Amino acid sequence: MPTKTLEEVARYVNGRVFGDPNVKISSAATLNKAGDGDISFLANLKYEKQLRTTKASAVIVGKDTITDSKVPLLVAEDPYFAFMQIMVLLHGHRKHKKVGISRLAYISDSAKIGADCDIHNFVTVADDARVGDRCIIYPGAYIGEGVNVGNDCIIYPNVTIYDNCKIGNRVIINANSAIGEDGFGFASHNGLHHKIPQIGSVILEDDVEIGACCGIERGTLGDTIIEKGTKLGDLVAIGHGTRIGPHCLLVAQVGISGSTIMGHHCIVGGQVGITGHLTIGNSVMIGAQAGVINNVGDNKVIFGSPAIDAKIARRAYSMLKNLPDMRKSIHDLEKQIAELEQKKSTKKKKAK
Amino acid sequence: MPTKTLEEVARYVNGRVFGDPNVKISSAATLNKAGDGDISFLANLKYEKQLRTTKASAVIVGKDTITDSKVPLLVAEDPYFAFMQIMVLLHGHRKHKKVGISRLAYISDSAKIGADCDIHNFVTVADDARVGDRCIIYPGAYIGEGVNVGNDCIIYPNVTIYDNCKIGNRVIINANSAIGEDGFGFASHNGLHHKIPQIGSVILEDDVEIGACCGIERGTLGDTIIEKGTKLGDLVAIGHGTRIGPHCLLVAQVGISGSTIMGHHCIVGGQVGITGHLTIGNSVMIGAQAGVINNVGDNKVIFGSPAIDAKIARRAYSMLKNLPDMRKSIHDLEKQIAELEQKKSTKKKKAK
Amino acid sequence: MPTKTLEEVARYVNGRVFGDPNVKISSAATLNKAGDGDISFLANLKYEKQLRTTKASAVIVGKDTITDSKVPLLVAEDPYFAFMQIMVLLHGHRKHKKVGISRLAYISDSAKIGADCDIHNFVTVADDARVGDRCIIYPGAYIGEGVNVGNDCIIYPNVTIYDNCKIGNRVIINANSAIGEDGFGFASHNGLHHKIPQIGSVILEDDVEIGACCGIERGTLGDTIIEKGTKLGDLVAIGHGTRIGPHCLLVAQVGISGSTIMGHHCIVGGQVGITGHLTIGNSVMIGAQAGVINNVGDNKVIFGSPAIDAKIARRAYSMLKNLPDMRKSIHDLEKQIAELEQKKSTKKKKAK
Repeated sequence: MPTKTLEEVARYVNGRVFGDPNVKISSAATLNKAGDGDISFLANLKYEKQLRTTKASAVIVGKDTITDSKVPLLVAEDPYFAFMQIMVLLHGHRKHKKVGISRLAYISDSAKIGADCDIHNFVTVADDARVGDRCIIYPGAYIGEGVNVGNDCIIYPNVTIYDNCKIGNRVIINANSAIGEDGFGFASHNGLHHKIPQIGSVILEDDVEIGACCGIERGTLGDTIIEKGTKLGDLVAIGHGTRIGPHCLLVAQVGISGSTIMGHHCIVGGQVGITGHLTIGNSVMIGAQAGVINNVGDNKVIFGSPAIDAKIARRAYSMLKNLPDMRKSIHDLEKQIAELEQKKSTKKKKAK
Repeated sequence: MPTKTLEEVARYVNGRVFGDPNVKISSAATLNKAGDGDISFLANLKYEKQLRTTKASAVIVGKDTITDSKVPLLVAEDPYFAFMQIMVLLHGHRKHKKVGISRLAYISDSAKIGADCDIHNFVTVADDARVGDRCIIYPGAYIGEGVNVGNDCIIYPNVTIYDNCKIGNRVIINANSAIGEDGFGFASHNGLHHKIPQIGSVILEDDVEIGACCGIERGTLGDTIIEKGTKLGDLVAIGHGTRIGPHCLLVAQVGISGSTIMGHHCIVGGQVGITGHLTIGNSVMIGAQAGVINNVGDNKVIFGSPAIDAKIARRAYSMLKNLPDMRKSIHDLEKQIAELEQKKSTKKKKAK
Repeated sequence: MPTKTLEEVARYVNGRVFGDPNVKISSAATLNKAGDGDISFLANLKYEKQLRTTKASAVIVGKDTITDSKVPLLVAEDPYFAFMQIMVLLHGHRKHKKVGISRLAYISDSAKIGADCDIHNFVTVADDARVGDRCIIYPGAYIGEGVNVGNDCIIYPNVTIYDNCKIGNRVIINANSAIGEDGFGFASHNGLHHKIPQIGSVILEDDVEIGACCGIERGTLGDTIIEKGTKLGDLVAIGHGTRIGPHCLLVAQVGISGSTIMGHHCIVGGQVGITGHLTIGNSVMIGAQAGVINNVGDNKVIFGSPAIDAKIARRAYSMLKNLPDMRKSIHDLEKQIAELEQKKSTKKKKAK
């Protein structure tokens, strides 16, 4: 592992050092786990106390966090981004062994493979498929007929890409995901469900990352599209004809039904479900486990099932536990009112 | 792509034409995306306005929807079913290349393969397995020991079928699904979880379709059964010993625990969870994300977690957002009552 | 299938027989499905009635359940555990054919394989990986670079284990699961999501079982750890850097975000979601579909989304259906109070 001085690291991320610039940095760790040689980061001020107890050799902090720290500080505008840069500096991204084209892979004669690709054992590249330059395709992956894969893609083991899907550049697809299976489309008639041909495809644009064990259905008529820079966690299900805008983050186990359109820079929490045929705006944030059944405007923050405005939802859902007390209060009130009314009528009667 | 006249298409689906019967139809599209040569459909009257703006060459409508349309209409009893038929007429179902038995597949000497099968590279058909006629088994699929696959099945890449499962005719299993893994059955004793042998199997009856990345556990004692014509979306989990009746639709990410029995023609929305040992009736509809913890009678429509009658649930769950206001109202009422009571007692005291 | 007398079976599980000790037992079944030769079990007294109607040849009951039964009884301290033992006695655990090292598998020259392993077709064992003794690795599984697998493990078809993960002894990984894909970690900066290198790994300790189609992310800095004896159902997603304590049970479709720490002997119901950076105590029980967003102390029983104490939750969530009535009651009360107050003020006015 390479070792850098704090000063070298600071220069790399365009930050400033407070304290000894010569401490050696060789890796990174969280504040409470860091030891000698580790740089840590303070992205959230609520952990500021840990600055006094951490055994890190240096800590990345945000601009506004000037403290009389014993541990050397690296001040950066965006500490978490600086942390990412330093992780890349010290460790680099995942390495992939150069294997070339394995003779245990099956490549159709009509398929075209770009330069400098690594295609591992037991991979199938079917007829008329095209794979760009510098792609890495791990064992057991299946690249269907007519699939088009761009440059610099990484396709992990046992991924299945159905026929005619289009994969952009620098796309990463994690293990055991399925891209382009038929959409869940049936016409039910006289009690039988008849399969509707799904003639659309799936398009994953540049810089998309798909987690492990995801399922992305092909469209019925148009395509299912994940736009550039969007990242999906594990076990995400995307329905047919849905379009996820660019630079969204969809956490694990999200499910989005068919024909929904989502804008750019949305963040969708784990296990969220979104029904079909909706329009979700830009920069929408959806809390974990939410159930979205209506269109959502730009910049909204929502959660709950059914999902509502987060401010209201936070109060409303946390009040669920008060329901039994509320109900009792209502009954008590009803009794009190009845008594008050009775007294009155009794008085009246007496008065008569 | 074949081109038909509207009249030819109408005759095929047993419908009637209003407008020019000679317009050419070569594909299908939604009302707002359709262009020249496309037929579209109006399954829901709320989109009727789009009839005026669509650029489709023709639109399929239901019996009761006679309008003075500029666009030629094809009147069919069940427009969505007609749409499906026309999709099949124009595009056909998914084509599969004839490859025969790949010499890169492994077929056990004791396995039996029917006529006209296509078995791709890197497929394993284990000992004593039987595969019927005209089956297509894609790369990386695993057909375990003693598995029985019927005729005309399609098994997509990297599907795993564990030993002794029984697959009917015309069954489709999408990529990366697992059929017949051990049920989640452990006897916990003195703090350790002991595996209970799962000696049941999985039976998928005729015309079942399983989505991508599904997991269907084998039964502990009896079998886990998906009855004929039932379709599962992606990432569905079915517990051991559960029996799903015929002609059900289970949307993506549904989870059903063990030993539950479901009737026929049920529709289960996305991310629904159903606990074990329940009995769900026939023609039950369960809304997305519902949590079902009680038996459900025939023809019920339910949603919510816990799931209740849909009519009540629709009002109750939409009222969650009013909880803070309701609580405030109760507090206000309590104060008002207290004041009323105090005035009264003060009056009484004064009176004394 | 071997046949035992009830007495032999009783001796094996250290139980006592009431009734004919010589009845023959060859298999097991549930009370309502058992027939001649089957032993059944009564783990829950609410099914006691079935003792009168069951056709089982014998029934396992708990210590305190002495009845004047017609069917012979086997009294055992823990009937479900005895049932498990008898299942193992009669049927044994799943058998695996001895295949040795398939010549259709790819094993790197630098990989080390222990004694008596069965490595099937189309398996890849990458560079520097180590596999212990008596392991069974089914077709299509991928054992990445530097992975360490202990003794007596079973890895089912199409499982993917990424580089440098550590798998203990007697670990079972079901089909199509992914172990060690990158954690979902991105630093978002100027609208782009930058991948943070995930330099941690995944550790599965001894006697862990992982269901089918699970995804377990590797840690960003430290490791993701599943401790000894813990069992995961199908389609479970575990986030990066999370640590699940020993002897937990996580049912199907559970999702746990990153950096959460869970104690020992927890039971987590189906479709539960747990957010990141939480601490969950020991022996915690979490009901199906719960959404856990706060730390949880030892021995707590919680459910609901958001999850709260089960006793409160049971009442609160079942009261959701009363919300419309409650709201109406509040409105009625407000009207009544208004009337009472008006009468009073009218009276006052009249009095003036």
